[in-house]
Formats: sequence, structure tokens, C-alpha cells
Amino acid sequence: MIDTYRQFSYKIHIVCYYGVGMKNLSLDEMRKMAEVIFGKAVAAVNPSEALKKSVHIQNEVLTIQIPGDSKKSFDLSPFQRIFVIGAGKASASMAQAMEEIFNGRLTSGIITTKHGHGLPLKVTEVIEAGHPLPDQKGLEGAKKIQTLLKETGEKDLVLFLISGGGSALLPLPVDGISLEEKQKTTQLLLDCGADIIEINTIRKHISQIKGGWLARWAYPSTVLTFILSDVVGDPLDSIASGPTVPDTSTFKEAWEILEKYDLVPKVPSSVQQYLSAGREGKMDETPKPGDGVFNKVHNILIGSNIIALQAAEAEAASLGYNTVILSSSIVGETREAARFHGSLAKEVFSSGHPIPKPACIISGGETTVTMKGHGKGGRNQEFVLAGAFEIMDLEKTVLLSGGTDGTDGPTDAAGAIADHTTIRRAQTLGLNAKTHLNNNDAYPFFQKLGDLLMTGPTQTNVMDVRIILVE
Amino acid sequence: MIDTYRQFSYKIHIVCYYGVGMKNLSLDEMRKMAEVIFGKAVAAVNPSEALKKSVHIQNEVLTIQIPGDSKKSFDLSPFQRIFVIGAGKASASMAQAMEEIFNGRLTSGIITTKHGHGLPLKVTEVIEAGHPLPDQKGLEGAKKIQTLLKETGEKDLVLFLISGGGSALLPLPVDGISLEEKQKTTQLLLDCGADIIEINTIRKHISQIKGGWLARWAYPSTVLTFILSDVVGDPLDSIASGPTVPDTSTFKEAWEILEKYDLVPKVPSSVQQYLSAGREGKMDETPKPGDGVFNKVHNILIGSNIIALQAAEAEAASLGYNTVILSSSIVGETREAARFHGSLAKEVFSSGHPIPKPACIISGGETTVTMKGHGKGGRNQEFVLAGAFEIMDLEKTVLLSGGTDGTDGPTDAAGAIADHTTIRRAQTLGLNAKTHLNNNDAYPFFQKLGDLLMTGPTQTNVMDVRIILVE
Repeated sequence: MIDTYRQFSYKIHIVCYYGVGMKNLSLDEMRKMAEVIFGKAVAAVNPSEALKKSVHIQNEVLTIQIPGDSKKSFDLSPFQRIFVIGAGKASASMAQAMEEIFNGRLTSGIITTKHGHGLPLKVTEVIEAGHPLPDQKGLEGAKKIQTLLKETGEKDLVLFLISGGGSALLPLPVDGISLEEKQKTTQLLLDCGADIIEINTIRKHISQIKGGWLARWAYPSTVLTFILSDVVGDPLDSIASGPTVPDTSTFKEAWEILEKYDLVPKVPSSVQQYLSAGREGKMDETPKPGDGVFNKVHNILIGSNIIALQAAEAEAASLGYNTVILSSSIVGETREAARFHGSLAKEVFSSGHPIPKPACIISGGETTVTMKGHGKGGRNQEFVLAGAFEIMDLEKTVLLSGGTDGTDGPTDAAGAIADHTTIRRAQTLGLNAKTHLNNNDAYPFFQKLGDLLMTGPTQTNVMDVRIILVE
Repeated sequence: MIDTYRQFSYKIHIVCYYGVGMKNLSLDEMRKMAEVIFGKAVAAVNPSEALKKSVHIQNEVLTIQIPGDSKKSFDLSPFQRIFVIGAGKASASMAQAMEEIFNGRLTSGIITTKHGHGLPLKVTEVIEAGHPLPDQKGLEGAKKIQTLLKETGEKDLVLFLISGGGSALLPLPVDGISLEEKQKTTQLLLDCGADIIEINTIRKHISQIKGGWLARWAYPSTVLTFILSDVVGDPLDSIASGPTVPDTSTFKEAWEILEKYDLVPKVPSSVQQYLSAGREGKMDETPKPGDGVFNKVHNILIGSNIIALQAAEAEAASLGYNTVILSSSIVGETREAARFHGSLAKEVFSSGHPIPKPACIISGGETTVTMKGHGKGGRNQEFVLAGAFEIMDLEKTVLLSGGTDGTDGPTDAAGAIADHTTIRRAQTLGLNAKTHLNNNDAYPFFQKLGDLLMTGPTQTNVMDVRIILVE
């Protein structure tokens, strides 16, 4: 799918080269431009491609150069063994890339990935496990990885590959707490409205992996953690619950959270006993900032929403658009976000702000939909449907929103595309856009218009990318 | 109040001149900078100041040069008489400016303004009338203006001054419909959820002023309409219901709106009869686009939200900030808008988008607050309180939001100012920001912190201005 994007992009370049220029493009061509730009964004955060592009070995020196980041170099000669471990939906393809980059130099490896996401690898063992609900397979994989790491030493290099789902795919509660008891605790926290920081505080304190524990098992080997971020703002301690990142939360805080939500008598007794003992200083705290184990750990963000947005911006600029990236962390109610984006498109027409025509406005992050109807759709399709109303009084304006994983909500579409004629075009087909919007039913609306954004699974996930083109 | 801003602004310029530079500014100084920038925005849309700055007479030629607009010139020598008419909360100060600019050349004039907003004028009669509910005084003023305009001819120039409230302050229903019947009709439309376009369609078709009618009475004199816009997007046909702007709606549509909401049997019989007769072609339609009367009409926007934002941008740029204007038409739920703005401030820190530090992000428009509590506040104060949570994990960030009229909601504050320390600073004072936000109770929160934005009445209104400073 990505290849198709590239071919199309090439054609567009030719068009521009011959000076036909953007201003003569039809709406259909503009819509294809938006798809091309989206395709580039997704391609830039394909974790396997990103690794192959950014990680190189020459003369026993490993260099890592991520777009927008400083260059890092590591002398490989002191290392006797190099291991690959990993967890996440993209860990198999990331491991495949590493096997290629390290071309015969890897000692062995173990990764866990979601059922059906495995790939044939040369030296790396692939364990398929449960996601989003962790299962016994995941637990076994986590134990195997822990065992391998405990055996590593100063002369070993560990390549750790993290992507979305890594938390569920690498479950290892502390001794005495079962997977079911841990899950029940998480569910209780969710049910009482605890926020993600509170939930993570508890989870990190009953885990042998999360909250920096994995780094401790690997110590004193050197760890390079390659991270594909699917969390808004890329907080390293939250992505897969930060297995190689210092934890700032404490047993005391974990206990206070149980008390705050009146969960002390409700959580499984094993969890209650463990956290109580931890609070009394009888259990080891998670590794904290300043802990020596982190001197040997390097966390490297190889794919994130902003990297995707920057690739989109580069492509749009090369196509001759004035560009602006608003933010990679746009959250909140989807329809409100659509109004906000609409107000910027309107301003391009009325005053040339935030940028003059031809304009490409880019944003990322992940909004939420408060369901009021019972239709079929996803946050990206709903964004585009709500946004279509915002732009309907403008001229030559195109709006695209897509999930970088190629799956928007429970649908087979990545998102949708609209332009300023969409609402009226739908009317002529007997489609009432308002009714579809009110019923959270964007999928059949765009399906009938032929305006779904279909990419198929993309092997990556850095949340959503939104593109507005104005000419 | 504006003068204080100017003095302060001058001091800041000196600071920069001596090279202390922005990066060494304290948070307090940044907050003052934000106030200075806001003050410049408000000063730029003071209608009286704007008129005096933009309208000049030299050698019998009237020139009008509005920032961001092309220059317009009118030869005054053919005109035997020049009249001033006007309606709106700022019409007295606008007329005062015109008397000064036309220095003894005005023949006479009539303006209506809100009770208490009158000023002593030389040749212009001032009528104080009811707002937001129209009253008999407004009706009498409208009749007087209509009578004056009917007597004007080809050798007359009419200066028409419109500002916020102009619609209520110039009420003149068609013969046979009383003011009360017109008001009842509007209320019925509001109650059944009709949108503003639908309401205006009806109002224009039972008025002798709105929807271009005033231009018809003035024909064949030349009309220069000077407009201060308090409507999102500055649609000229909506500001004061467009007395000198062609109307695109019809009697047929007006009737369909009555039918759509099942109001035909509910509106006063006079309204029903008039619209029914209009639908049958028995009444004169509102003047339409292409109507010759508009050849002699020039509508000139002298103050609008984008003009205020551009003044803010110029001031911020002169202070050394990188600047971006997002949009002058940001609407929607206040808290969601705060999240959106927060996500942009976060991105400035994480990737230097949409602009790198030191950054000044500017936006305008008017959001709405869905009341859930019973506290005291306004949309600007609520925006800043919600935004304070968004920026609390950042560094050196200041957030200001204020109503350009100096009155935010039912309070004596224009808005509020916060920075990244506000939530924590409030905690030390025993103030729970969350509780205040949930209770729509921002005023006492910022009052106790000393962080209300107090400007007093500003004599203008172009909705709100929001400023984010990041260093």
C-alpha cells in the first residue's frame, strides 16, 4: 500500500515540475495529494523501515540517527554477545529489521507479539500471546526474557524493541500475585475512575517488568531500547509502562491510591498484602531516577506521532504547500476538534492565517468520541464528517484524518476524506450527513460516497494524522 | 486604561533595547507582557481611535485605509450635504470621531445607542434606547433615521456607523406588525431551536431596516457604512442584520422556516399574514445582490477580531516573539478549546511546532460554556482555568484570555491570566482548581490569586483574544 503512495507521489512531482502547479489541481487531485501526504507520514513511522534507515553498522561502530534527534554512536567491539528482546504488536517486524541490520552478529533473541502478528525469524524466538487481554503465553514469554536477561553481563548488548501493546504482551506480576489477580486489580481501578497515572503507579508496583524493572534484570549489560510510541506526548515511562525507564512513583503512593478509591478491602488479598508490605519498606522499590542501572540504558524513540507529522510536512512542502504542524498531542472530543480545525481552515481563506494559501495544516494525537448513537465509525471518520460541515462554505478545501495503524475504530478503514462539496454531494445521493453524525455512523456515509481512506494494516501505530489542504 | 498599557509597553521596549532580552524575563514580567499584548489588541479596535487613524480628509478627498485592507478614496466635492447616522453600543463614540474628522462639514445626524452610552455631540442627535430588548425609544430613533434617509438625494453622503447591539437599537417592523409581535416571533424561533440564519431570514422579512432595507431608503445618496464586527467570521449580512447589505433569503424561505418548526399557527396573526402575503408576491422582497441601490453603498469593516489579533501579533513580534495567529473564529465548548490550545503549548516545548520558542500563539473568536455548576465566571476566565491544567507540567508558559469589551460573563473582569505554576500556587492558598472549574466558578479562584484581567469598559467589542506566551 505504501508503495502505491510512493508511485502516486512521483507522478505528482512530475506534474509540479512541468509547472502545471497546484492552483490548477482539481478537487479529486487535491484529495489524492492528501492521501499521498498521509502515506508519507505512515511510511516514516513504519518501525522496520525506520530502524533500517536510522540504524547502521560500519567498522564495528553502531550509529543511530533518528530524524529530528542527535546522532548516537556505540562501539560494538567490547560486546561478546548481542541479544534481541521485544514486546508489542510490531516486535516481529522490528526484530526482522534488527536481524538484517546486525547481519549474522546476533547471538539469540526472544520477542512476544500479538497472536497472528508473528514472522519467521532467524535467531529470534517468536512467542505469540494475548492482546489486549494478557494470557499464559505472554507470561511464559516474559519469564523467558527475564531468565535470559538475568544471565547477561557487562560484555553483553541487549536490543529491546517496544511497540504498542507491549504492556499486555509482557505480563509478569511479582511472586504471589497471579495474572488474574493483577487483571482484577486493573479492572477495579478502571471501574472507579482512576486515571492512567494512578493505574500505572499500582501496576508498576506489582510487576517484575514495568517501571524500570526490566533494566534492573539486564544490568550490567548495555541496553538499547528502541521505542515506537502510541501514547500522546511520548512519555517514555508510560509506553509499555516503561520497562527500561526510571519510576518516580512509590509504594506509599500506590497504597494511597487504593485508599483514595476505597479499594483496600476490594483488591485481591495477595495484592493488598504485597502493597502493604511494600509501604512498610519490606519490598524492593522500583528503580528510581539516578539508579546506576540506567547508566547503561539508552531509550531511543524511533517512531512517534511528531515524526509522522514532520514527514507529512516535508512531503507537503515539496509539493509546494505552505505548511504548519499544530500539535502531535491533540486530544479531547472529536467533534470539538473538528470545529477547531475548521476555524483554522476558514481563517486561511479570510486572512491567510495561520498560513497563506496554498496551505497544508497538519495535526496529530488521538481524540475521543462520546457515543450517542449506535452507528459504525471511528474517531477519524467522525472527525472528517463533523469537519465536512465546517468547510462546506469554503472553496477548494480537503480534509483527511486517518489512524496510522490503518484501523479506525471497529472498521476496516483508516479514516476518511472530505472536501467542501461533500455535504452537498451526499444530499444528492440521499444521504443526510447530520443524521449520520448524530448516530456516530460515519462509515456507511463515507462508504456510499466512496470516500473512506483504505490503507489496510500498516504494521505501525503512532495514533492519528490529520491533514487540511486549502488552495 | 489603554493608556496605561501604552506606558507599560514603552517600558518593555526599553528593556529589550538594552538587550536584557526576553529569555531572562521572570514569570511576572511575562504575564505583564501578555497584558501589554492584549492591551494593544483592544486599542487597535477602539472604533473611535480606528476611525481617526484610518479616515482622513485632504483637498476635498476622503481616504480610508484600514489595516490589511486596500485604500479607498472618495471625492467629497460633489456632495452638498453629509449626514451621520448610526446604531450600536459604540455609535456615540464613533459619531464623535466622525464629527472630529469632518470638522464642521457635517450637516446633521441621528444615532441610537444603549441607555447610558450617550456622549455630548455637536450636530448629531443622540437617542438612548433599550438593549438587548428593543424599546419604544429605539423605534422612534429608527423612524427618525428612516425619515431623514428618505429625504436624501444624489448629492448627499450618508455616513452610517454600526457596532454591536445595532440590531436591537434600530428596530422598525413593517407596518401592521408591532414591536411586541416581532419580539414574540423571535422568541418562538429561539425556543424551537432555529439557527441564527433561520431567525435572521424571518427578521429581515418583517423589518423596514434589516436585510438591506436601510440602503434602499438612502438611495440615491452615497452610503459609507463603517462596521465594528462582534460576529464570528464577520459576515456583513449578519452584523446588526445587515441594513446596507444585500439579502439572499426570500419570503418563500421565511415561510418554510415557519412551517418547519410548526410555527404558522403560533406566530402573531399579523406576522403570519404579512409573510403569507410576501410568499404570494404581494409584498416587496428585501433588496437582493445586484440591486442597483448597492452601487452607491460601501461597507467598510473598521474593527474586527482579526484586526485585534493582528495588532497583538505585531506587538508580540516587536517584543521578539515568534508569532502565529491560529484563527479569529474559534468557537465551541470552552474547556475543549482550552485543551486544544494546551496541546499547542506542549508541542512548542516538545518539537518547536507550530513555532519555536520564544513563542506567542494568538487566537480569537468566542467560545461557549455549558454550565454545570452555579459559580461566578465567564468564558475567558473558564478558558484560562481549564488551560492552567494543560500547561502545569510545562515551564515558563503564560496563558491569557480576555473579552475585548472588558466584560467577561456577568463579571467586572475582562478575563484572567495563568501560568504553569498557577494550579500549584492555588493549592498553597487552599484553593482547589478542579472544584472551581467543575462549579464554573473561575472568578473567585482568580480573584484570590490576584490573577483577574481587569481593564474596565473598553468602548469596543470584537469578541475575545487569547494569548499564550512560551519562553
